[in-house]
Amino acid sequence: METLKTIFEHRSIRKYKDTAVEKDVLDNILNAAIRTSTTGNMQVYSIIVTQDKKRKEELHKIHFGQGMILEAPVLLTFNADFNRFNKWCKQRKAEPGYDNFLSFTTAAIDALIAAQNATLAAEAQGLGVCYLGTTTYQAHKLVDFFNLPKGVVPMTTLVIGYPEDIPPLVDRLPAEAVVHYESYKDYSNEDIDRLYVEKEALDETKKLLKENNLETLAQIFTQNRYPKNVNVDFSRLFLEVIEKQGFMNQ
Amino acid sequence: METLKTIFEHRSIRKYKDTAVEKDVLDNILNAAIRTSTTGNMQVYSIIVTQDKKRKEELHKIHFGQGMILEAPVLLTFNADFNRFNKWCKQRKAEPGYDNFLSFTTAAIDALIAAQNATLAAEAQGLGVCYLGTTTYQAHKLVDFFNLPKGVVPMTTLVIGYPEDIPPLVDRLPAEAVVHYESYKDYSNEDIDRLYVEKEALDETKKLLKENNLETLAQIFTQNRYPKNVNVDFSRLFLEVIEKQGFMNQ
Repeated sequence: METLKTIFEHRSIRKYKDTAVEKDVLDNILNAAIRTSTTGNMQVYSIIVTQDKKRKEELHKIHFGQGMILEAPVLLTFNADFNRFNKWCKQRKAEPGYDNFLSFTTAAIDALIAAQNATLAAEAQGLGVCYLGTTTYQAHKLVDFFNLPKGVVPMTTLVIGYPEDIPPLVDRLPAEAVVHYESYKDYSNEDIDRLYVEKEALDETKKLLKENNLETLAQIFTQNRYPKNVNVDFSRLFLEVIEKQGFMNQ
Repeated sequence: METLKTIFEHRSIRKYKDTAVEKDVLDNILNAAIRTSTTGNMQVYSIIVTQDKKRKEELHKIHFGQGMILEAPVLLTFNADFNRFNKWCKQRKAEPGYDNFLSFTTAAIDALIAAQNATLAAEAQGLGVCYLGTTTYQAHKLVDFFNLPKGVVPMTTLVIGYPEDIPPLVDRLPAEAVVHYESYKDYSNEDIDRLYVEKEALDETKKLLKENNLETLAQIFTQNRYPKNVNVDFSRLFLEVIEKQGFMNQ
Protein backbone atom coordinates (compact mmCIF):
# COMPACT_ATOMS: atom_id res chain seq x y z
CA MET A 1 0.00 0.00 0.00
CA GLU A 2 1.81 3.08 -1.26
CA THR A 3 0.42 5.48 1.35
CA LEU A 4 1.64 3.32 4.21
CA LYS A 5 4.96 2.83 2.43
CA THR A 6 5.35 6.62 2.07
CA ILE A 7 4.65 7.02 5.78
CA PHE A 8 6.87 4.18 6.97
CA GLU A 9 9.82 5.25 4.83
CA HIS A 10 9.87 8.81 6.09
CA ARG A 11 13.20 10.23 7.14
CA SER A 12 14.08 13.88 7.60
CA ILE A 13 16.30 15.00 4.72
CA ARG A 14 19.07 17.42 5.59
CA LYS A 15 21.10 17.40 2.33
CA TYR A 16 19.51 18.50 -0.94
CA LYS A 17 20.34 18.49 -4.63
CA ASP A 18 20.46 21.75 -6.54
CA THR A 19 17.38 20.70 -8.55
CA ALA A 20 14.29 22.85 -8.84
CA VAL A 21 10.89 21.53 -7.74
CA GLU A 22 8.64 21.55 -10.81
CA LYS A 23 5.54 23.74 -10.66
CA ASP A 24 3.08 20.86 -10.98
CA VAL A 25 4.87 18.96 -8.20
CA LEU A 26 4.73 22.00 -5.91
CA ASP A 27 1.08 22.57 -6.80
CA ASN A 28 0.30 18.98 -5.81
CA ILE A 29 1.94 19.64 -2.43
CA LEU A 30 -0.01 22.85 -1.88
CA ASN A 31 -3.29 21.33 -3.03
CA ALA A 32 -2.69 18.34 -0.75
CA ALA A 33 -2.28 20.74 2.17
CA ILE A 34 -5.48 22.54 1.16
CA ARG A 35 -7.43 19.26 1.11
CA THR A 36 -6.66 18.56 4.80
CA SER A 37 -9.48 18.68 7.35
CA THR A 38 -9.89 22.06 8.99
CA THR A 39 -12.06 23.11 11.91
CA GLY A 40 -15.55 23.84 10.61
CA ASN A 41 -14.01 24.09 7.12
CA MET A 42 -12.92 27.61 8.09
CA GLN A 43 -9.41 27.00 6.70
CA VAL A 44 -7.86 29.26 9.30
CA TYR A 45 -4.24 28.77 8.27
CA SER A 46 -1.97 30.01 5.50
CA ILE A 47 1.13 28.82 3.70
CA ILE A 48 3.98 31.03 2.55
CA VAL A 49 6.14 29.67 -0.27
CA THR A 50 9.77 30.84 -0.28
CA GLN A 51 11.77 30.15 -3.44
CA ASP A 52 13.66 33.41 -3.93
CA LYS A 53 17.37 32.89 -3.26
CA LYS A 54 17.87 36.15 -1.38
CA ARG A 55 14.88 35.55 0.82
CA LYS A 56 16.07 31.99 1.53
CA GLU A 57 19.36 33.49 2.70
CA GLU A 58 17.42 35.68 5.12
CA LEU A 59 15.40 32.72 6.36
CA HIS A 60 18.63 30.78 6.75
CA LYS A 61 19.81 33.41 9.23
CA ILE A 62 16.48 33.54 11.04
CA HIS A 63 16.44 29.74 11.43
CA PHE A 64 19.84 29.70 13.17
CA GLY A 65 21.89 29.01 10.02
CA GLN A 66 20.76 25.47 9.22
CA GLY A 67 22.62 24.71 5.97
CA MET A 68 19.86 22.73 4.28
CA ILE A 69 17.80 25.93 3.98
CA LEU A 70 20.27 27.27 1.43
CA GLU A 71 20.37 23.99 -0.51
CA ALA A 72 16.67 23.15 -0.77
CA PRO A 73 14.71 25.01 -3.46
CA VAL A 74 11.44 25.41 -1.53
CA LEU A 75 10.47 26.39 1.99
CA LEU A 76 6.87 26.34 3.15
CA THR A 77 5.96 28.26 6.29
CA PHE A 78 2.63 27.25 7.81
CA ASN A 79 0.77 29.83 9.87
CA ALA A 80 -2.18 29.79 12.19
CA ASP A 81 -4.26 32.42 10.36
CA PHE A 82 -7.58 34.01 11.30
CA ASN A 83 -6.82 37.19 9.34
CA ARG A 84 -8.66 36.29 6.13
CA PHE A 85 -11.59 34.77 8.03
CA ASN A 86 -11.90 37.83 10.28
CA LYS A 87 -11.87 40.15 7.27
CA TRP A 88 -14.59 38.08 5.61
CA CYS A 89 -16.72 38.19 8.76
CA LYS A 90 -16.44 41.97 9.06
CA GLN A 91 -17.35 42.37 5.39
CA ARG A 92 -20.43 40.19 5.92
CA LYS A 93 -22.10 41.89 8.89
CA ALA A 94 -20.66 39.36 11.33
CA GLU A 95 -18.54 40.24 14.36
CA PRO A 96 -15.65 37.75 14.65
CA GLY A 97 -14.85 36.57 18.18
CA TYR A 98 -11.55 34.90 17.35
CA ASP A 99 -9.08 37.06 19.25
CA ASN A 100 -8.55 34.48 21.99
CA PHE A 101 -6.31 31.54 22.83
CA LEU A 102 -8.80 28.83 21.82
CA SER A 103 -9.02 30.35 18.36
CA PHE A 104 -5.23 30.46 18.16
CA THR A 105 -5.16 26.76 19.04
CA THR A 106 -7.81 25.96 16.43
CA ALA A 107 -5.83 27.78 13.76
CA ALA A 108 -2.55 26.19 14.85
CA ILE A 109 -4.13 22.73 14.53
CA ASP A 110 -5.33 23.58 11.01
CA ALA A 111 -1.82 24.72 10.05
CA LEU A 112 -0.01 21.71 11.51
CA ILE A 113 -2.10 18.90 10.09
CA ALA A 114 -1.98 20.65 6.71
CA ALA A 115 1.82 20.64 6.98
CA GLN A 116 1.85 16.88 7.43
CA ASN A 117 -0.30 16.37 4.33
CA ALA A 118 2.14 18.57 2.42
CA THR A 119 5.01 16.45 3.75
CA LEU A 120 3.49 13.20 2.52
CA ALA A 121 2.51 14.71 -0.83
CA ALA A 122 6.13 15.80 -1.27
CA GLU A 123 7.57 12.46 -0.21
CA ALA A 124 5.17 10.53 -2.44
CA GLN A 125 6.57 12.53 -5.37
CA GLY A 126 10.16 11.62 -4.57
CA LEU A 127 11.04 14.75 -2.65
CA GLY A 128 12.65 14.97 0.76
CA VAL A 129 11.32 17.08 3.61
CA CYS A 130 12.56 18.37 6.93
CA TYR A 131 10.51 20.19 9.58
CA LEU A 132 12.10 23.25 11.15
CA GLY A 133 11.32 23.37 14.85
CA THR A 134 12.85 26.84 14.94
CA THR A 135 9.70 28.48 13.51
CA THR A 136 8.07 28.90 16.92
CA TYR A 137 11.40 30.06 18.42
CA GLN A 138 11.71 32.77 15.81
CA ALA A 139 8.05 33.60 15.24
CA HIS A 140 8.68 37.21 16.28
CA LYS A 141 11.24 37.60 13.48
CA LEU A 142 9.11 35.74 10.95
CA VAL A 143 6.16 38.06 11.62
CA ASP A 144 8.36 40.94 10.44
CA PHE A 145 10.04 39.02 7.64
CA PHE A 146 6.76 37.91 6.04
CA ASN A 147 4.88 41.07 7.02
CA LEU A 148 2.22 39.09 8.86
CA PRO A 149 -0.88 41.03 9.91
CA LYS A 150 -2.81 40.53 13.15
CA GLY A 151 -4.37 37.11 13.37
CA VAL A 152 -1.37 35.31 11.85
CA VAL A 153 1.24 33.30 13.81
CA PRO A 154 3.94 31.11 12.18
CA MET A 155 3.82 27.52 13.48
CA THR A 156 6.19 25.38 11.44
CA THR A 157 8.30 25.35 8.28
CA LEU A 158 9.00 22.60 5.78
CA VAL A 159 12.26 22.45 3.86
CA ILE A 160 11.54 20.65 0.56
CA GLY A 161 13.74 19.45 -2.29
CA TYR A 162 15.27 16.45 -4.01
CA PRO A 163 17.40 14.51 -1.50
CA GLU A 164 21.16 14.54 -2.01
CA ASP A 165 21.39 11.51 0.17
CA ILE A 166 18.88 9.40 1.97
CA PRO A 167 19.94 8.55 5.51
CA PRO A 168 18.89 5.32 7.24
CA LEU A 169 15.59 5.28 9.10
CA VAL A 170 15.90 6.89 12.51
CA ASP A 171 15.09 4.81 15.60
CA ARG A 172 11.77 5.12 17.41
CA LEU A 173 10.85 4.03 20.92
CA PRO A 174 8.72 0.87 21.12
CA ALA A 175 5.01 1.52 20.53
CA GLU A 176 4.21 0.99 24.21
CA ALA A 177 6.18 4.18 24.98
CA VAL A 178 3.60 6.20 23.06
CA VAL A 179 0.36 4.21 22.91
CA HIS A 180 -2.01 3.74 25.86
CA TYR A 181 -5.15 1.62 25.83
CA GLU A 182 -8.30 3.00 27.44
CA SER A 183 -6.53 4.90 30.21
CA TYR A 184 -3.13 6.56 30.55
CA LYS A 185 -0.69 4.08 32.06
CA ASP A 186 2.02 6.04 33.79
CA TYR A 187 5.59 4.74 33.66
CA SER A 188 7.45 2.97 36.46
CA ASN A 189 11.23 3.28 36.71
CA GLU A 190 11.46 -0.19 35.17
CA ASP A 191 9.22 0.87 32.29
CA ILE A 192 11.48 3.82 31.52
CA ASP A 193 14.59 1.63 31.59
CA ARG A 194 12.99 -0.94 29.28
CA LEU A 195 11.59 1.64 26.82
CA TYR A 196 14.90 3.48 26.42
CA VAL A 197 17.32 0.55 26.52
CA GLU A 198 17.55 0.17 22.75
CA LYS A 199 17.94 3.88 22.04
CA GLU A 200 20.64 4.15 24.68
CA ALA A 201 22.51 1.17 23.24
CA LEU A 202 22.71 2.61 19.69
CA ASP A 203 26.19 3.26 18.29
CA GLU A 204 24.98 6.75 17.44
CA THR A 205 24.18 7.38 21.11
CA LYS A 206 27.60 6.22 22.20
CA LYS A 207 29.20 8.48 19.61
CA LEU A 208 27.14 11.46 20.80
CA LEU A 209 28.11 10.88 24.42
CA LYS A 210 31.78 10.77 23.52
CA GLU A 211 31.55 13.90 21.33
CA ASN A 212 29.68 15.83 24.00
CA ASN A 213 31.62 14.37 26.89
CA LEU A 214 28.43 13.63 28.79
CA GLU A 215 27.31 10.64 30.79
CA THR A 216 23.74 10.12 29.55
CA LEU A 217 21.78 10.72 26.36
CA ALA A 218 19.17 12.63 28.36
CA GLN A 219 21.86 15.16 29.33
CA ILE A 220 22.49 15.86 25.65
CA PHE A 221 18.88 17.04 25.45
CA THR A 222 18.69 18.92 28.74
CA GLN A 223 22.17 20.51 28.60
CA ASN A 224 22.99 20.90 24.90
CA ARG A 225 19.99 20.66 22.59
CA TYR A 226 17.00 21.97 24.52
CA PRO A 227 18.26 23.58 27.74
CA LYS A 228 15.82 25.19 30.13
CA ASN A 229 17.03 28.80 29.80
CA VAL A 230 16.61 28.70 26.02
CA ASN A 231 13.13 27.20 26.31
CA VAL A 232 12.12 29.81 28.84
CA ASP A 233 13.40 32.72 26.74
CA PHE A 234 11.65 31.50 23.62
CA SER A 235 8.48 30.73 25.56
CA ARG A 236 8.25 34.36 26.54
CA LEU A 237 8.91 35.54 22.98
CA PHE A 238 6.36 33.15 21.48
CA LEU A 239 3.68 34.11 23.99
CA GLU A 240 4.38 37.76 23.16
CA VAL A 241 3.86 36.99 19.46
CA ILE A 242 0.56 35.25 20.20
CA GLU A 243 -0.54 38.28 22.21
CA LYS A 244 0.75 40.84 19.70
CA GLN A 245 -0.99 39.01 16.86
CA GLY A 246 -4.25 39.40 18.75
CA PHE A 247 -4.99 36.01 20.28
CA MET A 248 -4.92 36.78 24.00
CA ASN A 249 -8.00 38.95 24.44
CA GLN A 250 -9.99 36.66 26.69
CA MET B 1 -0.18 7.98 -7.15
CA GLU B 2 -2.01 6.37 -4.27
CA THR B 3 -0.75 8.72 -1.56
CA LEU B 4 -2.01 11.78 -3.42
CA LYS B 5 -5.28 10.00 -4.15
CA THR B 6 -5.72 9.22 -0.45
CA ILE B 7 -5.10 12.86 0.38
CA PHE B 8 -7.30 14.33 -2.36
CA GLU B 9 -10.22 12.02 -1.60
CA HIS B 10 -10.35 12.87 2.08
CA ARG B 11 -13.73 13.68 3.54
CA SER B 12 -14.69 13.71 7.20
CA ILE B 13 -16.87 10.69 7.93
CA ARG B 14 -19.72 11.21 10.39
CA LYS B 15 -21.66 7.93 9.97
CA TYR B 16 -20.02 4.60 10.72
CA LYS B 17 -20.77 0.91 10.28
CA ASP B 18 -20.93 -1.36 13.28
CA THR B 19 -17.79 -3.16 12.08
CA ALA B 20 -14.74 -3.65 14.25
CA VAL B 21 -11.33 -2.34 13.13
CA GLU B 22 -9.01 -5.34 12.85
CA LYS B 23 -5.97 -5.38 15.12
CA ASP B 24 -3.44 -5.32 12.26
CA VAL B 25 -5.25 -2.39 10.64
CA LEU B 26 -5.22 -0.46 13.93
CA ASP B 27 -1.57 -1.35 14.47
CA ASN B 28 -0.74 0.08 11.03
CA ILE B 29 -2.46 3.32 12.03
CA LEU B 30 -0.59 3.54 15.33
CA ASN B 31 2.75 2.62 13.75
CA ALA B 32 2.17 5.23 11.03
CA ALA B 33 1.65 7.85 13.73
CA ILE B 34 4.83 6.71 15.48
CA ARG B 35 6.84 7.07 12.24
CA THR B 36 6.01 10.81 11.97
CA SER B 37 8.78 13.36 12.44
CA THR B 38 9.07 14.61 15.99
CA THR B 39 11.17 17.43 17.43
CA GLY B 40 14.67 16.12 18.07
CA ASN B 41 13.20 12.60 17.88
CA MET B 42 12.02 13.14 21.47
CA GLN B 43 8.56 11.75 20.62
CA VAL B 44 6.91 14.06 23.13
CA TYR B 45 3.34 13.02 22.44
CA SER B 46 1.09 10.10 23.30
CA ILE B 47 -1.95 8.38 21.85
CA ILE B 48 -4.81 6.92 23.87
CA VAL B 49 -6.89 4.25 22.16
CA THR B 50 -10.55 4.03 23.23
CA GLN B 51 -12.47 0.93 22.16
CA ASP B 52 -14.41 0.03 25.29
CA LYS B 53 -18.12 0.68 24.79
CA LYS B 54 -18.74 2.15 28.23
CA ARG B 55 -15.77 4.47 27.92
CA LYS B 56 -16.91 5.55 24.47
CA GLU B 57 -20.25 6.48 26.02
CA GLU B 58 -18.41 8.67 28.52
CA LEU B 59 -16.34 10.29 25.75
CA HIS B 60 -19.55 10.84 23.79
CA LYS B 61 -20.84 12.96 26.68
CA ILE B 62 -17.55 14.83 27.08
CA HIS B 63 -17.44 15.65 23.35
CA PHE B 64 -20.89 17.32 23.42
CA GLY B 65 -22.84 14.23 22.34
CA GLN B 66 -21.64 13.86 18.76
CA GLY B 67 -23.40 10.67 17.59
CA MET B 68 -20.57 9.28 15.50
CA ILE B 69 -18.57 8.66 18.69
CA LEU B 70 -21.01 5.93 19.67
CA GLU B 71 -21.01 4.39 16.19
CA ALA B 72 -17.28 4.30 15.41
CA PRO B 73 -15.30 1.44 16.98
CA VAL B 74 -12.08 3.37 17.68
CA LEU B 75 -11.22 6.76 19.08
CA LEU B 76 -7.63 8.00 19.23
CA THR B 77 -6.82 10.92 21.51
CA PHE B 78 -3.51 12.63 20.75
CA ASN B 79 -1.74 14.39 23.60
CA ALA B 80 1.18 16.76 23.88
CA ASP B 81 3.23 14.68 26.33
CA PHE B 82 6.52 15.48 28.07
CA ASN B 83 5.74 13.15 30.99
CA ARG B 84 7.67 10.11 29.77
CA PHE B 85 10.57 12.24 28.54
CA ASN B 86 10.78 14.12 31.85
CA LYS B 87 10.75 10.85 33.81
CA TRP B 88 13.55 9.51 31.63
CA CYS B 89 15.63 12.66 32.15
CA LYS B 90 15.24 12.50 35.92
CA GLN B 91 16.23 8.84 35.92
CA ARG B 92 19.36 9.68 33.88
CA LYS B 93 20.94 12.45 35.95
CA ALA B 94 19.47 15.14 33.68
CA GLU B 95 17.27 18.01 34.86
CA PRO B 96 14.43 18.53 32.36
CA GLY B 97 13.57 22.16 31.57
CA TYR B 98 10.32 21.45 29.74
CA ASP B 99 7.76 23.05 32.04
CA ASN B 100 7.24 26.05 29.78
CA PHE B 101 5.04 27.19 26.91
CA LEU B 102 7.59 26.55 24.16
CA SER B 103 7.85 22.94 25.28
CA PHE B 104 4.07 22.66 25.29
CA THR B 105 4.05 23.96 21.70
CA THR B 106 6.77 21.52 20.67
CA ALA B 107 4.83 18.62 22.13
CA ALA B 108 1.56 19.83 20.60
CA ILE B 109 3.19 19.94 17.17
CA ASP B 110 4.46 16.36 17.62
CA ALA B 111 0.95 15.22 18.58
CA LEU B 112 -0.83 16.97 15.72
CA ILE B 113 1.33 15.92 12.81
CA ALA B 114 1.25 12.36 14.15
CA ALA B 115 -2.55 12.57 14.09
CA GLN B 116 -2.52 13.44 10.41
CA ASN B 117 -0.28 10.45 9.60
CA ALA B 118 -2.73 8.26 11.51
CA THR B 119 -5.59 9.78 9.50
CA LEU B 120 -4.00 8.95 6.17
CA ALA B 121 -2.97 5.47 7.31
CA ALA B 122 -6.59 4.85 8.27
CA GLU B 123 -8.00 6.24 5.04
CA ALA B 124 -5.51 4.29 2.91
CA GLN B 125 -6.88 1.13 4.54
CA GLY B 126 -10.49 1.97 3.67
CA LEU B 127 -11.46 3.49 6.97
CA GLY B 128 -13.14 6.81 7.55
CA VAL B 129 -11.91 9.43 9.98
CA CYS B 130 -13.25 12.56 11.63
CA TYR B 131 -11.29 15.02 13.77
CA LEU B 132 -12.97 16.20 16.96
CA GLY B 133 -12.27 19.87 17.52
CA THR B 134 -13.87 19.53 20.94
CA THR B 135 -10.73 18.00 22.47
CA THR B 136 -9.18 21.37 23.33
CA TYR B 137 -12.56 22.65 24.56
CA GLN B 138 -12.86 19.74 26.95
CA ALA B 139 -9.21 19.15 27.78
CA HIS B 140 -9.93 19.76 31.49
CA LYS B 141 -12.44 16.88 31.49
CA LEU B 142 -10.21 14.62 29.40
CA VAL B 143 -7.33 15.07 31.85
CA ASP B 144 -9.55 13.54 34.53
CA PHE B 145 -11.14 10.94 32.27
CA PHE B 146 -7.80 9.54 31.05
CA ASN B 147 -6.02 10.18 34.34
CA LEU B 148 -3.35 12.28 32.65
CA PRO B 149 -0.30 13.16 34.76
CA LYS B 150 1.56 16.47 34.68
CA GLY B 151 3.19 17.12 31.33
CA VAL B 152 0.25 15.76 29.30
CA VAL B 153 -2.37 17.89 27.47
CA PRO B 154 -4.99 16.47 25.05
CA MET B 155 -4.83 18.19 21.64
CA THR B 156 -7.12 16.35 19.23
CA THR B 157 -9.15 13.19 18.80
CA LEU B 158 -9.75 11.01 15.75
CA VAL B 159 -12.96 9.06 15.33
CA ILE B 160 -12.14 6.00 13.19
CA GLY B 161 -14.25 3.26 11.62
CA TYR B 162 -15.68 1.88 8.41
CA PRO B 163 -17.84 4.53 6.72
CA GLU B 164 -21.60 3.95 6.61
CA ASP B 165 -21.83 6.46 3.85
CA ILE B 166 -19.30 8.54 2.00
CA PRO B 167 -20.41 12.13 1.55
CA PRO B 168 -19.35 14.26 -1.44
CA LEU B 169 -16.08 16.17 -1.21
CA VAL B 170 -16.49 19.36 0.77
CA ASP B 171 -15.70 22.69 -0.92
CA ARG B 172 -12.44 24.51 -0.32
CA LEU B 173 -11.56 28.13 -0.98
CA PRO B 174 -9.39 28.74 -4.07
CA ALA B 175 -5.67 28.15 -3.42
CA GLU B 176 -4.94 31.88 -3.50
CA ALA B 177 -6.98 32.24 -0.28
CA VAL B 178 -4.42 30.14 1.57
CA VAL B 179 -1.12 30.29 -0.36
CA HIS B 180 1.19 33.32 -0.44
CA TYR B 181 4.37 33.58 -2.49
CA GLU B 182 7.47 35.10 -0.85
CA SER B 183 5.59 37.59 1.31
CA TYR B 184 2.17 37.68 2.92
CA LYS B 185 -0.26 39.41 0.59
CA ASP B 186 -3.04 40.85 2.67
CA TYR B 187 -6.57 40.80 1.29
CA SER B 188 -8.47 43.74 -0.17
CA ASN B 189 -12.26 43.89 0.07
CA GLU B 190 -12.39 42.77 -3.55
CA ASP B 191 -10.11 39.81 -2.80
CA ILE B 192 -12.41 38.67 0.00
CA ASP B 193 -15.48 38.94 -2.23
CA ARG B 194 -13.78 36.97 -5.01
CA LEU B 195 -12.37 34.27 -2.71
CA TYR B 196 -15.71 33.58 -0.99
CA VAL B 197 -18.09 33.97 -3.94
CA GLU B 198 -18.22 30.25 -4.76
CA LYS B 199 -18.66 29.14 -1.16
CA GLU B 200 -21.43 31.68 -0.65
CA ALA B 201 -23.21 30.54 -3.80
CA LEU B 202 -23.38 26.85 -2.79
CA ASP B 203 -26.83 25.34 -2.37
CA GLU B 204 -25.68 24.11 1.01
CA THR B 205 -24.95 27.70 2.07
CA LYS B 206 -28.40 28.85 0.97
CA LYS B 207 -29.98 25.98 2.90
CA LEU B 208 -28.00 26.86 6.03
CA LEU B 209 -29.02 30.51 5.85
CA LYS B 210 -32.67 29.55 5.56
CA GLU B 211 -32.47 27.03 8.42
CA ASN B 212 -30.68 29.49 10.68
CA ASN B 213 -32.65 32.50 9.53
CA LEU B 214 -29.48 34.52 9.06
CA GLU B 215 -28.35 36.88 6.35
CA THR B 216 -24.73 35.77 5.77
CA LEU B 217 -22.73 32.57 6.05
CA ALA B 218 -20.18 34.39 8.23
CA GLN B 219 -22.95 35.01 10.80
CA ILE B 220 -23.52 31.26 11.06
CA PHE B 221 -19.93 30.99 12.28
CA THR B 222 -19.85 34.05 14.54
CA GLN B 223 -23.35 33.65 16.02
CA ASN B 224 -24.10 29.93 15.95
CA ARG B 225 -21.06 27.72 15.52
CA TYR B 226 -18.12 29.53 17.11
CA PRO B 227 -19.48 32.50 19.06
CA LYS B 228 -17.12 34.74 20.98
CA ASN B 229 -18.39 33.98 24.49
CA VAL B 230 -17.90 30.24 23.98
CA ASN B 231 -14.39 30.76 22.59
CA VAL B 232 -13.49 33.01 25.51
CA ASP B 233 -14.78 30.57 28.12
CA PHE B 234 -12.94 27.63 26.59
CA SER B 235 -9.78 29.72 26.12
CA ARG B 236 -9.67 30.27 29.86
CA LEU B 237 -10.26 26.58 30.59
CA PHE B 238 -7.64 25.42 28.09
CA LEU B 239 -5.02 27.86 29.39
CA GLU B 240 -5.78 26.59 32.91
CA VAL B 241 -5.17 23.02 31.74
CA ILE B 242 -1.84 24.00 30.17
CA GLU B 243 -0.85 25.67 33.43
CA LYS B 244 -2.14 22.86 35.66
CA GLN B 245 -0.29 20.30 33.54
CA GLY B 246 2.92 22.19 34.22
CA PHE B 247 3.67 24.12 31.04
CA MET B 248 3.51 27.72 32.24
CA ASN B 249 6.53 27.96 34.54
CA GLN B 250 8.50 30.51 32.58
